[in-house]
Amino acid sequence: MNYTQVTENHINQFKQIVGEEFVLTDKESLDNAAHDETEDHHFPPEVVIKAGNAQEIADIMKICNEHIIPVVPRGGGTGLSGGALPLKRGVVISTERLNRILYIDEQNLQATVEPGVITQVFQETVKEKGLFYPPDPSSRGTCFLGGNLGENAGGPKAVKYGVTRDYVINMEVVLPSGDIIWTAANVLKNSTGYNLTQLMIGSEGTLGIITKIVFKLRSYPQKDVTLLVPFTTSEEACRAITAVYMAGVTPSGMEFMEREAIERTMKYLDETLSDPVSIDLPDGINAHLLIELDGNDDEVLMRDAEKIMATLEGFDTGEISFADTAQQKAELWKVRRNVSPAVNAYSLTKAEDVVVPRANLPALITAIKDIGREYTFNSVCYGHAGDGNLHINVMKEQLPDDYWHKEVNEGIAKIFEKVVELGGTLSGEHGIGIAKRPYMHLAMSDVNLNLMRGIKKVFDPNGILNPEKIF
Amino acid sequence: MNYTQVTENHINQFKQIVGEEFVLTDKESLDNAAHDETEDHHFPPEVVIKAGNAQEIADIMKICNEHIIPVVPRGGGTGLSGGALPLKRGVVISTERLNRILYIDEQNLQATVEPGVITQVFQETVKEKGLFYPPDPSSRGTCFLGGNLGENAGGPKAVKYGVTRDYVINMEVVLPSGDIIWTAANVLKNSTGYNLTQLMIGSEGTLGIITKIVFKLRSYPQKDVTLLVPFTTSEEACRAITAVYMAGVTPSGMEFMEREAIERTMKYLDETLSDPVSIDLPDGINAHLLIELDGNDDEVLMRDAEKIMATLEGFDTGEISFADTAQQKAELWKVRRNVSPAVNAYSLTKAEDVVVPRANLPALITAIKDIGREYTFNSVCYGHAGDGNLHINVMKEQLPDDYWHKEVNEGIAKIFEKVVELGGTLSGEHGIGIAKRPYMHLAMSDVNLNLMRGIKKVFDPNGILNPEKIF
Repeated sequence: MNYTQVTENHINQFKQIVGEEFVLTDKESLDNAAHDETEDHHFPPEVVIKAGNAQEIADIMKICNEHIIPVVPRGGGTGLSGGALPLKRGVVISTERLNRILYIDEQNLQATVEPGVITQVFQETVKEKGLFYPPDPSSRGTCFLGGNLGENAGGPKAVKYGVTRDYVINMEVVLPSGDIIWTAANVLKNSTGYNLTQLMIGSEGTLGIITKIVFKLRSYPQKDVTLLVPFTTSEEACRAITAVYMAGVTPSGMEFMEREAIERTMKYLDETLSDPVSIDLPDGINAHLLIELDGNDDEVLMRDAEKIMATLEGFDTGEISFADTAQQKAELWKVRRNVSPAVNAYSLTKAEDVVVPRANLPALITAIKDIGREYTFNSVCYGHAGDGNLHINVMKEQLPDDYWHKEVNEGIAKIFEKVVELGGTLSGEHGIGIAKRPYMHLAMSDVNLNLMRGIKKVFDPNGILNPEKIF
Repeated sequence: MNYTQVTENHINQFKQIVGEEFVLTDKESLDNAAHDETEDHHFPPEVVIKAGNAQEIADIMKICNEHIIPVVPRGGGTGLSGGALPLKRGVVISTERLNRILYIDEQNLQATVEPGVITQVFQETVKEKGLFYPPDPSSRGTCFLGGNLGENAGGPKAVKYGVTRDYVINMEVVLPSGDIIWTAANVLKNSTGYNLTQLMIGSEGTLGIITKIVFKLRSYPQKDVTLLVPFTTSEEACRAITAVYMAGVTPSGMEFMEREAIERTMKYLDETLSDPVSIDLPDGINAHLLIELDGNDDEVLMRDAEKIMATLEGFDTGEISFADTAQQKAELWKVRRNVSPAVNAYSLTKAEDVVVPRANLPALITAIKDIGREYTFNSVCYGHAGDGNLHINVMKEQLPDDYWHKEVNEGIAKIFEKVVELGGTLSGEHGIGIAKRPYMHLAMSDVNLNLMRGIKKVFDPNGILNPEKIF
């Protein structure tokens, strides 16, 4: 595809649409939009536009669609697959000014928001009304809801409550044509035509730009119990996960962390953030499960906790600790949330986000470490293992650049092949973006990919939206 | 679109593919495939093929795609929107031989099945292993899982547990090209490209023919409590629903029935099925809520039931009854499940299936009855009101045929307009098919419809699959 360069004339038209101060071409603004949290990429756009509403985005889209200028929507810039990077330059539309929670409908347990609302702000605002928005990506303090939809973000509570897509019932979308549509209606059940809502979620900004979102919400659970369970091996920890589910318990969090994940995070919290947390790591303990139960009834929680304890008796565990206070719970979750920043502070990484049927996690962990030894890279594994979703941070450490770009990628391809062999796929919650695009053929047939390309063409016949992503 | 008639030559090719005994052209077979449970339609195909596996369907599809012969997949024939009717004749592919439960994966709480499995058979088979498949259409004793996917069926438990689409993680599909694909992987989270699985569900057989389904399952809840609550008016009953949810209780069933729904059903059970059930209907009681709570803990259930009772104190109710025994519960659900057959036995009906945000149900009920008076038709309302999903059986009774086809449809259009005005849409769980197709423009813009048409063309460029449905 031959894209048109943005000219002074286009810039002036954009300024007329959104106002001069929201059309940015200075180096700092372009550099800011040139990366997300994926590796060390740098793809500056030609202009960053901070649009103020759907109609402005529609007007910009019409110009870009007519002149074949790439348009890339951008949220909080926390993506881990490069989904927001303007590979072909052009226009980045930032949603940061679309940051209003428009309406919390307490009667219907729904909320209508703009895509630039920070996830944690939304969580806390609805919580004040006793409502619960469960999707909870580790980056919740800075990521935007629009980006969460784009990549179909998950987080620890997905294992009980589902991912972002399970909470979206309707959305307003600007199409490349400049048309503004609502995908559905504000209802809990819908069998009225093809599900454009679900098609849009996880499409990584390649089909349209989301300008309003209607979420369904739940009542906020009043109580929770948190356990930290040490295991002798990662495989043993992952086997225990399946046993807990087979015992009929559904935790609201079932997080796996390798020993090195905790070690690096404690060091990072202490030395970089000056906010130390201490977790005892005796010799022979090589992995942990962080298990959370939630609900509204202490007795039920304790009974489920006892079921878990009884189940764990069949496994090689160290001393299990219960977090007794809110502070202890917060510290455990602080460790878990900071694994990714901690590992990234230590080394450049490639962050994979594979997912398999959870009973196959032990075989996956073994394979990852075997492949790491074969290709001489180290990896730190952690993640939302309760739903089979494992984060693998492959670390560059002292590896030479060319080895990092070639041999390490071959090793990662081996991991993906194993994932698919185990019934899994490439991404559970980070999306494909550019980081996993070279591996898509491992996970799906050309027929599937061609269907996706066909759908893309229906929405975006000129290919202006977020070019060269996913497939 | 000009379709080709099925010739003797095609029939012989089909016989070579599936075997002579499974290619049916006798009048009875064609008549059986000419209708479902929607009004009194009669659209016989030219041939019915009972295919035995995906490859056979692929081979049939290739022939039909080459010669532009319509192909309509058919499950149990229980559809309420005409989704399985072969409007343009051609080939009906029955999935009745694809009736195997292939694998129940107890470790991962998943099951792989063929589309011709009867829903209730599947429910009961997984229940024997302590597993729970919550979607529960009233027709569960005869409908097929494939049809449930095609229309995105719901049922009473959707209000707590979600609809069919919430339980499907992967499927095998035969495309019009004859290609056989898997839409995803057997995983609980998936951010790997566009969501073809969710696009396929609810597409009413217009994009591909589903030949295998991978469901996720839950642990079976051990206990339940059932209440029948009489109200003075339908509006009062619907206001109470919202209050229950705002009290933080999530029932596993929240069914609404107008007085006439219960009266007609008792009469039907007694006189037609000789299986009487008695529910006391004092004067002044005009609607009921059938409320079910489920879970694993008697105390929690009783506490939630008490919360409901406390909430209901603010409403005009009659005497609330608890179903104490399994038999009493079964009788109440038997009444609820038989409303649709009972009303249909009494009169030809048009069965609508609208859905609104649940707090808007009182306004909807009032409007439906007002419109009925204006257009002189009677209707019986009931349904899964907890998620805002209301079934409206508009009854022909003594209305003349031409009035039934013209003025009554105008009245129904008025109802749909009101539904959309109230933030709702045309179908919660029955699909659009042919019955609601004339009203689609009321619920969505031409831009939405054109996106859907575009998607259809990507999957089915020759338009052979289930022509003239949805849009």
